[in-house]
Amino acid sequence: MSLIVMKFGGSSVGDAERMKRVAKRIVDRKREGHRCVVVVSAMGDTTDDLIDLSKQLYDGAPPAREMDMLLTTGEQVSVALLSMAIQNMGEPAVSYTGWQSGMITEDLHGKARITDIQPHRIHTALEKDNVVIVAGFQGMTEDGEITTLGRGGSDTTAVALAAAIHADLCEIYTDVDGIYTTDPRVVKNARKLKEISYDEMLELANLGAAVLHPRAVEYAKNYNVALVVRSSFTQNEGTYVKEEAEMEQGIVVRGIAYDKNIARISILGVPDKPGQLAKVFTSLAAEQIDVDIIVQSGVLNGLADFSFSVSLSDRDKALQTIEGIRGEVGFREVTSEGDLVKISIVGAGMVSTPGVAAKMFDELSKIGVSINMVSTSEIKISCVIDGKQLAEAVQALHTAYGLDAQEQVFVGGPQDRR
Amino acid sequence: MSLIVMKFGGSSVGDAERMKRVAKRIVDRKREGHRCVVVVSAMGDTTDDLIDLSKQLYDGAPPAREMDMLLTTGEQVSVALLSMAIQNMGEPAVSYTGWQSGMITEDLHGKARITDIQPHRIHTALEKDNVVIVAGFQGMTEDGEITTLGRGGSDTTAVALAAAIHADLCEIYTDVDGIYTTDPRVVKNARKLKEISYDEMLELANLGAAVLHPRAVEYAKNYNVALVVRSSFTQNEGTYVKEEAEMEQGIVVRGIAYDKNIARISILGVPDKPGQLAKVFTSLAAEQIDVDIIVQSGVLNGLADFSFSVSLSDRDKALQTIEGIRGEVGFREVTSEGDLVKISIVGAGMVSTPGVAAKMFDELSKIGVSINMVSTSEIKISCVIDGKQLAEAVQALHTAYGLDAQEQVFVGGPQDRR
Repeated sequence: MSLIVMKFGGSSVGDAERMKRVAKRIVDRKREGHRCVVVVSAMGDTTDDLIDLSKQLYDGAPPAREMDMLLTTGEQVSVALLSMAIQNMGEPAVSYTGWQSGMITEDLHGKARITDIQPHRIHTALEKDNVVIVAGFQGMTEDGEITTLGRGGSDTTAVALAAAIHADLCEIYTDVDGIYTTDPRVVKNARKLKEISYDEMLELANLGAAVLHPRAVEYAKNYNVALVVRSSFTQNEGTYVKEEAEMEQGIVVRGIAYDKNIARISILGVPDKPGQLAKVFTSLAAEQIDVDIIVQSGVLNGLADFSFSVSLSDRDKALQTIEGIRGEVGFREVTSEGDLVKISIVGAGMVSTPGVAAKMFDELSKIGVSINMVSTSEIKISCVIDGKQLAEAVQALHTAYGLDAQEQVFVGGPQDRR
Repeated sequence: MSLIVMKFGGSSVGDAERMKRVAKRIVDRKREGHRCVVVVSAMGDTTDDLIDLSKQLYDGAPPAREMDMLLTTGEQVSVALLSMAIQNMGEPAVSYTGWQSGMITEDLHGKARITDIQPHRIHTALEKDNVVIVAGFQGMTEDGEITTLGRGGSDTTAVALAAAIHADLCEIYTDVDGIYTTDPRVVKNARKLKEISYDEMLELANLGAAVLHPRAVEYAKNYNVALVVRSSFTQNEGTYVKEEAEMEQGIVVRGIAYDKNIARISILGVPDKPGQLAKVFTSLAAEQIDVDIIVQSGVLNGLADFSFSVSLSDRDKALQTIEGIRGEVGFREVTSEGDLVKISIVGAGMVSTPGVAAKMFDELSKIGVSINMVSTSEIKISCVIDGKQLAEAVQALHTAYGLDAQEQVFVGGPQDRR
């Protein structure tokens, strides 16, 4: 008998019918002999509806404390209803809010971090054979204030809870059936991964594969929580997220991610004096603008050019900010481009495999894609390219690195597909 | 500067516009110099919508614990939104759930009684100049389980809180502008009362004037909380509910209430042996059937007839129950009538005024109304009559006891109407 945490997102419990399906799924798991702790998000559009209401009553951004009071009702509704649905199928169940389940957070509304978990109620309820249902995304400060964990919070609740109660497995149920080598909407041959390391998953999560929240993956890595991402609508096996050391070896590139929301900003003719770049990036940081890749070209006649990438949505604010320090920095010209994407190959095996980057540049050049910017980490290489060439580039790299579904069959033989 | 508790029901905060009007009302009160604690119910149809959802997920009556988890979200949404609306008008405000505001209840889901109030958070927040907004209808057990107070619960929250924090006044805002001498839909000359005693209000509340919940009135009486019932939509002065001793004297009948939901059941030919009646009423009580008026006629040939009144909705269940003990009790026949109403005159002055009942019977007989059953208490006389004669009877008694608006003017002169 194992102890598992099952997490269901808002779309999995979007209406009464889906809620029943989720309940059935949980009841089946319990009847297989598992003890189940379930984390659930607010139903479908509930959160958006509550936000709409708040906008009618407060001009601008509503006070964060009251938003937490408001939004946490969404998960409370879900847990109560799911508990009823499970009890209706004949299994005992009990629901808890974040504070009832002992989720203690720092005193920061809207995006608090979990500081402690006191799961005594959960243990007691499990001993009485209950399915325990916990409201995701929410907690309580030491002073009894209700807080939320911010975006992706229910994933974090599930993983943190799994760590605290020493669960054998944390199952993240979602509307896709696992992590894919790349976006199946772009590459028809995209293949579901059997497993992926925490670090690889973190790179993919950060790069726009929005299945699992990066914070939850970090938490899982830190506490070594065994994770699986699987579909709430099918019985397909999902993708296991685990320690690299436990994984099958020899795979160089695990997956390909992309981010369409990229703009490049170039500042030309900057006097080559110490501290000029620092002025630019300090002022951008002060405006909460995240800068991703930075490239500086050579110096000519004491003047340097450099460029950097930001989110497309931050482009205008970034340009304004830079104009605002023109006098201070003294550059000649600032330009920007918007129709760009960042394409990234991710794989823990890269570290020990020379020539991975060269292969990427070569493959892209073969299909006539020029590379605007490059950035690398130990397990990832990212290139910023023209947005119109995205699909073609992803497809080419997917094939080149042996990720296509058919290729896998040819290389490893049928028995490897199990 | 006084400390007041203001209670707003669900229809007063039914949508964003009404919520804003309520916020304005509170802000005005605060700017008059009062410290304000506000108790609010769930918005309009929220509770019904949540109940509908629960019915889709559970066959039969859902588990009461989970219903409490579910329904308490309704008030939590209200308090958060109301706090935002008040802050939007420039006044500091803070919202609390039942458990946060220290409402401790017994461990009984769906209709818990308050056992203790620990309002330290409220006091602290008031000291910081906040409007404090508390979710009505809900509390927490000593073990941290979420409970609800049952029907009319928000009135009780308001009154109990007013007692606990020693408020100077508890204002119940509702969709009528006070307590009337009788139902204005039946008697055009019904007059709003300036004041009424707790006991009179209790009789009226129990008799179907659904403005204020009886439990809240009892609580107010026990803790001597000064109450006023007033409209959330107008600035009209409401009706004060207070100790009899503090009231103007000389009024015999304060108001006239009626209850349309009455059935009479008659059991004929019951052997006149000790314990026969007890058997009947014990079996009715076991079925949760409330019996109101009981009348026994004389004994003839060792056989007695008696009849009693129950809620119309309990009639069939009562008849079945009695049939079920036919063998045990040995009566000849059981009959019932449904088209009846109970009309009641209420007034603390009756105790010291002889002839009030005689006058009632006389007035009713003058207009051809026959009386089926009678019951009296120190401050009330009730008659069960034919439902078709209700309007005529209420009107006649209203005039006879000097309750009509015009009559009041003639008797007391214009200055008395202020």
